[in-house]
Amino acid sequence: MSNDSGAQSASVKVVEEEDATGKVMDIYEEIKTTLGIDFVPNMYRALAVNPDYLEMTWRKIQSVMGEDGRLGNMTKDIVALTVSIMSGCDYCIGVYSDAVKRAGLDDVALLELYEVIDVYAGLNRLNIGLQTKTDEKSWHGCGGGR
Amino acid sequence: MSNDSGAQSASVKVVEEEDATGKVMDIYEEIKTTLGIDFVPNMYRALAVNPDYLEMTWRKIQSVMGEDGRLGNMTKDIVALTVSIMSGCDYCIGVYSDAVKRAGLDDVALLELYEVIDVYAGLNRLNIGLQTKTDEKSWHGCGGGR
Amino acid sequence: MSNDSGAQSASVKVVEEEDATGKVMDIYEEIKTTLGIDFVPNMYRALAVNPDYLEMTWRKIQSVMGEDGRLGNMTKDIVALTVSIMSGCDYCIGVYSDAVKRAGLDDVALLELYEVIDVYAGLNRLNIGLQTKTDEKSWHGCGGGR
Amino acid sequence: MSNDSGAQSASVKVVEEEDATGKVMDIYEEIKTTLGIDFVPNMYRALAVNPDYLEMTWRKIQSVMGEDGRLGNMTKDIVALTVSIMSGCDYCIGVYSDAVKRAGLDDVALLELYEVIDVYAGLNRLNIGLQTKTDEKSWHGCGGGR
Amino acid sequence: MSNDSGAQSASVKVVEEEDATGKVMDIYEEIKTTLGIDFVPNMYRALAVNPDYLEMTWRKIQSVMGEDGRLGNMTKDIVALTVSIMSGCDYCIGVYSDAVKRAGLDDVALLELYEVIDVYAGLNRLNIGLQTKTDEKSWHGCGGGR
Amino acid sequence: MSNDSGAQSASVKVVEEEDATGKVMDIYEEIKTTLGIDFVPNMYRALAVNPDYLEMTWRKIQSVMGEDGRLGNMTKDIVALTVSIMSGCDYCIGVYSDAVKRAGLDDVALLELYEVIDVYAGLNRLNIGLQTKTDEKSWHGCGGGR
Repeated sequence: MSNDSGAQSASVKVVEEEDATGKVMDIYEEIKTTLGIDFVPNMYRALAVNPDYLEMTWRKIQSVMGEDGRLGNMTKDIVALTVSIMSGCDYCIGVYSDAVKRAGLDDVALLELYEVIDVYAGLNRLNIGLQTKTDEKSWHGCGGGR
Repeated sequence: MSNDSGAQSASVKVVEEEDATGKVMDIYEEIKTTLGIDFVPNMYRALAVNPDYLEMTWRKIQSVMGEDGRLGNMTKDIVALTVSIMSGCDYCIGVYSDAVKRAGLDDVALLELYEVIDVYAGLNRLNIGLQTKTDEKSWHGCGGGR
Repeated sequence: MSNDSGAQSASVKVVEEEDATGKVMDIYEEIKTTLGIDFVPNMYRALAVNPDYLEMTWRKIQSVMGEDGRLGNMTKDIVALTVSIMSGCDYCIGVYSDAVKRAGLDDVALLELYEVIDVYAGLNRLNIGLQTKTDEKSWHGCGGGR
Repeated sequence: MSNDSGAQSASVKVVEEEDATGKVMDIYEEIKTTLGIDFVPNMYRALAVNPDYLEMTWRKIQSVMGEDGRLGNMTKDIVALTVSIMSGCDYCIGVYSDAVKRAGLDDVALLELYEVIDVYAGLNRLNIGLQTKTDEKSWHGCGGGR
Repeated sequence: MSNDSGAQSASVKVVEEEDATGKVMDIYEEIKTTLGIDFVPNMYRALAVNPDYLEMTWRKIQSVMGEDGRLGNMTKDIVALTVSIMSGCDYCIGVYSDAVKRAGLDDVALLELYEVIDVYAGLNRLNIGLQTKTDEKSWHGCGGGR
Repeated sequence: MSNDSGAQSASVKVVEEEDATGKVMDIYEEIKTTLGIDFVPNMYRALAVNPDYLEMTWRKIQSVMGEDGRLGNMTKDIVALTVSIMSGCDYCIGVYSDAVKRAGLDDVALLELYEVIDVYAGLNRLNIGLQTKTDEKSWHGCGGGR
């Protein structure tokens, strides 16, 4: 059977927290401290099969997501959720739905996000079907002359 | 030949501004006034083949994108661009790259957006491949215990 | 350079009609006769790099698309165009836009197709975002109790 | 936990039928009457978080799907199912598989639809990989010189 | 209800092994013998609704996957898994995760595959967002001057 | 206008080689040396807008792609091309088509790769449409009892 319902990943045997040593143990601690949680998410336990990859992936994520930057944390979490919805990744949709709610989006705001996704997922396919050509002059989105 | 390089859409014959009458002419005026531009974008000229559809689509877009709402205009434009990149719609990517630049994103901020998309488009596929199971406890995204 | 603008495929060297022999020549003739055209489309010229694959692919396509079946030719061409739009394949969108127009769809009907695609590409992402659960009772689509 | 298995949507708290008032109650009634069912599908209950959005989305769907138009109801339902399969939306695939069966497609016809999707999902990627160039002359799909 | 949890496919009524006759029975036997298993996978039982389609699909799969060819069986199975992950097909991901493990990939090698998918799924979207132009000179991938 | 045909990226102003200083100049040198080319590809010139991101992305790519590992360089390049085709990224398809050809794949082998992609892109959608359930027993792909 491909799926073992007790496993955190159906594809690889993950590194449990109690079995982590060396670099993996260090990164596990850093993950829990940085994210303010008392467990290591299943995703990171699977990446730990290759400790160097776990480290590099964690570092890249922190570099991109861990500080405010130009866009701000809330906007970056909203983009992360949008990308996850467009990719159809159930695991990531679950994590980032929780993330943006905790960051302050109520249900009206969350539905507003889905409304924008609805509108553009539709318009995108419409324009791909229409084979619409680039306009000769520039314009600035559908939301008014802001 | 499928493609006529002079046409605004390779799929349907669009309604030119000088040929617009009635409802189409009214919506064309509203589009130009609302968006602050002196031409009707190719996309809307193609939708005008069905005047009711042009009207309903324009109204729905304005309802979703035309006022600040909870998310704010900038965030909604960023989401529109993200959805367009995930759908691979060249026309829409062009329009919304321009839109967010005009709204104030410089190249560093725009690349920051692409960085978030890069990270999550990658993590999404990784978790789909790993068949990662939902964690037993909730967490809140990869960006730290905000 | 990856792209040679004179080539029919940027990826492989295709088998030109004048160079076709044996099985490839026979299939080329069959393609032209069956489709009622006086040239072999670029796609088939590329597949001819592997004559067995050309034959099997042509036979499978004819088996699925070549007779009316339950759905009828027009509906099958419409589905082929829909799939091509969802996949973002420019070459196939061009071929099937032409195909459904020649089969009798005018611009109003073609836009109607894009309208359905617009609506459902949007609703699909909305439901993926909402993580909507299967309803306890069955219903029958959004178009009324037909 | 992100997922509450008792909920109709894991992302937002839906508006139950017994809690609906004003515009939401009216649209709920219209949905049940129009679709000929005795409950409001989970999707619409989630959209009701924003009553204006519920109304606009319902009206646009009815405008596109609710009358025969050029394509006919059956063809439009088939396109809706095709788009849902290409988007990978399980909820929508379930609804529209039921819809087309009730509208008269038997298992042979339904498999015929999947056959067309199989063929073109394959050919689309093949042509994207081959970077096939648009043919110099027009042709009309793979199904014969209809 | 759309989903019958006891069924092998929620969409069509499959042809059980004990009900198979004629061509279907013959292909079922060939499948079991060729694949070295004592049951017919759910996928093939569903295709059997159209015996000719079952046969043609099975023959095409065997032609492409059944012999070593230039790429070798392991590489072809890895590509099949990669395509399944990119399509988000849970059924196929399960089958091909098992396939490549049985063919000899351990967890480190399997994660290595997911690493490559992570990197390129990210870079693909980055370049689509950046609207990167083809380089004037050719290069040869990101892995060094091999 | 969104597109400046002279630019390497239509979205951001890239860092030209003659303008590179400090970390960017060092990474540019490393890229050229490692990849054995005498120019910096457009993609990397765009990433240089954020020097830290350029560095981190380059290091992660080298870590994953730069050494043989379990899968071998050729297999990893083939996976990179497959992912690019599934994502529909023209830029990446061009780069990796060249990469695998230079690494030794002739046109027959390259078409063989596209054949596998054709077969599984089709089967994936077929199983998503069929809502095929996981088999009770494990099997090992469609290519025979290897």
